[in-house]
Amino acid sequence: KVEAVLKSILKSIDVIIETRVYPTEDEEKVVKAIKNFFPDAEISIEDDVLRARAKNINHFRELLRMQKILDTARNEMLKSVSGNEITILLNKQTATVSRINFVEEDAILSPIKITFRLYGIQPERLIDYLAPETRDGRPVKELKESELFE
Amino acid sequence: KVEAVLKSILKSIDVIIETRVYPTEDEEKVVKAIKNFFPDAEISIEDDVLRARAKNINHFRELLRMQKILDTARNEMLKSVSGNEITILLNKQTATVSRINFVEEDAILSPIKITFRLYGIQPERLIDYLAPETRDGRPVKELKESELFE
Repeated sequence: KVEAVLKSILKSIDVIIETRVYPTEDEEKVVKAIKNFFPDAEISIEDDVLRARAKNINHFRELLRMQKILDTARNEMLKSVSGNEITILLNKQTATVSRINFVEEDAILSPIKITFRLYGIQPERLIDYLAPETRDGRPVKELKESELFE
Repeated sequence: KVEAVLKSILKSIDVIIETRVYPTEDEEKVVKAIKNFFPDAEISIEDDVLRARAKNINHFRELLRMQKILDTARNEMLKSVSGNEITILLNKQTATVSRINFVEEDAILSPIKITFRLYGIQPERLIDYLAPETRDGRPVKELKESELFE
């Protein structure tokens, strides 16, 4: 509880990542898929479930721009806000080649579940930072990282 | 064509196996899963698809008995007859521990597709050999391998 209050004062984001690792899968390949999106992820695998925590969202932000999927990402994130969390599901297979692909729960070999847990930051603000509105395919307004934590 | 006619005269069974190998999967684990059911399988993997051929069905037959799933197997096979072929779908994940588990096409874990292609043998006869009717959990009549090829 105290930790959460402190975090709110300091404003921070926890990225919580989870996916199942099936018997035919190669743990290293699944770990690499996660690191492709969040290079600073700290990963543990227990009872066929991979869990990870990360802080740096900028690489993921960069990938969204490189792959020109800001509108899709924005829509997916806006419909996935719940309290101080935004949870999205990404395709584990395309993650192996750093490709962001939003999927449903029953995606092949189960998706990667990514939860952005926000302390002292409005979900909409994070969404504006990661996936701003676009016009003619270009962001209308790009938030600076400093503005995210204002 | 000639080959098929010859095979019919000689009466034989081809086991044709197919499954996708996804980017996060370990090829060796998938190969092992196949060999768990058909030890004599000759396997090739191309463009993320594993294809194999086998002749020996006795190990698979033995597993059906050990796991006491003759009734399930019989029902699945009876409803999967098409011409001179019987095609079943098995769970790739449980195959890694030699466990036979019948699944639907859209299994999240992409099934192993096994086709028994019969030459000069009636499908029902193969089913009687692999998964005979049971009473109180025991086969009513066990066909000998020689009777299969009569």
